[in-house]
Amino acid sequence: MLTGIHVVMIGGDARQLEIIRKLSTLDAKISLVGFTQLDDGFIGASKQDLDEVMWESVDAILLPIGGMSTEGTINSVFSNKTLALEANHLKATPDHCTIYTGIANDRLKRMAEQANCDTVLLMERDDVAIYNSIPTAEGAVMLAIQHTDITIHQAKIAVLGLGRVGMTVARTFQALGAKVKVGARDSHLLARITEMGLTPFHTDDTKKELTDVDLCINTIPAKVLTSSVLAEMQQHAFILDLASKPGGVDFAYSEKRGLKAMLVPGLPGMVAPKTAGKILANVLADLLLEQAQP
Amino acid sequence: MLTGIHVVMIGGDARQLEIIRKLSTLDAKISLVGFTQLDDGFIGASKQDLDEVMWESVDAILLPIGGMSTEGTINSVFSNKTLALEANHLKATPDHCTIYTGIANDRLKRMAEQANCDTVLLMERDDVAIYNSIPTAEGAVMLAIQHTDITIHQAKIAVLGLGRVGMTVARTFQALGAKVKVGARDSHLLARITEMGLTPFHTDDTKKELTDVDLCINTIPAKVLTSSVLAEMQQHAFILDLASKPGGVDFAYSEKRGLKAMLVPGLPGMVAPKTAGKILANVLADLLLEQAQP
Repeated sequence: MLTGIHVVMIGGDARQLEIIRKLSTLDAKISLVGFTQLDDGFIGASKQDLDEVMWESVDAILLPIGGMSTEGTINSVFSNKTLALEANHLKATPDHCTIYTGIANDRLKRMAEQANCDTVLLMERDDVAIYNSIPTAEGAVMLAIQHTDITIHQAKIAVLGLGRVGMTVARTFQALGAKVKVGARDSHLLARITEMGLTPFHTDDTKKELTDVDLCINTIPAKVLTSSVLAEMQQHAFILDLASKPGGVDFAYSEKRGLKAMLVPGLPGMVAPKTAGKILANVLADLLLEQAQP
Repeated sequence: MLTGIHVVMIGGDARQLEIIRKLSTLDAKISLVGFTQLDDGFIGASKQDLDEVMWESVDAILLPIGGMSTEGTINSVFSNKTLALEANHLKATPDHCTIYTGIANDRLKRMAEQANCDTVLLMERDDVAIYNSIPTAEGAVMLAIQHTDITIHQAKIAVLGLGRVGMTVARTFQALGAKVKVGARDSHLLARITEMGLTPFHTDDTKKELTDVDLCINTIPAKVLTSSVLAEMQQHAFILDLASKPGGVDFAYSEKRGLKAMLVPGLPGMVAPKTAGKILANVLADLLLEQAQP
């Protein structure tokens, strides 16, 4: 249980509701900042302004997945007010107070460092990335069905990368009856691709291997789909780039050639906000329980 | 080959393009009626009006999947003109001339009978129904991802019916990691559901079995989701009705209760027109080859 633990949640989207629900069940004391339009009454949670929070008793600060803007503001879909977390808020917190956020820009990192607050980047954790790969793969399936005029079943599909997302995506499309090949570089990954019943290829051969595919799904955060690779692809091929911004596709060239290519980071919050919220809620609850009973 | 075989194609949608392509490859002579806006030049195909067709040499007439309206007109997405097939057109054809259509209403059946033309209903064929179940299941996956806030993975799903569509739908959602139970009546179907690693239940228990599901997919063309069944379902449950019109759901009641329920027949032409066209083209080509070389 998190009885006696004081958590400040600042801003966010539908995913935050699952986190509030979970922490409320665990008996945490929750200060909700930027939730003025939220109807639900959660036990142990109270709506506050940033300046009303008793910062000296705060054990943990929860920011949205997107963290903080470069201007220092925090987004909330539940409020029209600008939320500006300031250095003096953080400085008033006890030493052990930890900031949990999806990602952190330099401004947030600097502010946390100056206030001596530990920062946990949830989206960099392997467990979160693997759980999130499930709604990501389902989002890719949805987009593939929407944006092609053929079935996934029997379609020729190339997945680039067998990381935390690539493995889930490859397995998902294989399960739907597609002919899936997967590009990787390391020999142990090529072995794993083979073990999974998929067709492996070395990323050095990407250009040749993509000439016959109907759909290419990239998960590698590097310029792998260069103009030279794109130039040889079939005109009807659809390209889904799941790598973090700016992705791995030469989008200027793909547009010029008339190839349909989309950069779609952040699918979990889009296609399954409730599941995506639960994923974060479970991991956060574990981390806070560890922090409470070290 | 279909050399010397004269086929008249009247109206249709994107699926017809695959049929024209296939029959053109097989060297058939094709009269295209209602394709004025079609750019592609296909070898052996010529655009004609209904009154220009040399009906006395016609071996086969291809109508769209929807067949003929009750007013006797035929739809075409490639023309703005009204296409009205008349009895005297059919009467001018030779005895062996066969009409191929998706479905047929009474007007078309009567007209064909009076002209002594055999009629083949493609959508009633088992092979077409099973091939079409693939894009249908993918369409169901797309709608399930779009209309729920959870992942299919680990969702509780009930499929009603293990017919040509139900089996594909159950297997597809199972492959995506859902917890799938399937309702059927016959003992051999309950055995098959068990063999497939799915959870079987008797349709007599539908009411009880649907109380805990996140998603229910109906494939049974009878009123199975009555108000009494719907009344006990979870408020967030999503209902997809794939049975032919009018479906198996009491939609008036589901709307009253605020349950999200959709009747979606005709998914193949919507989500994968090219594949759906190829399915028809392959079956049609086989049937015409049989007719040509009995």
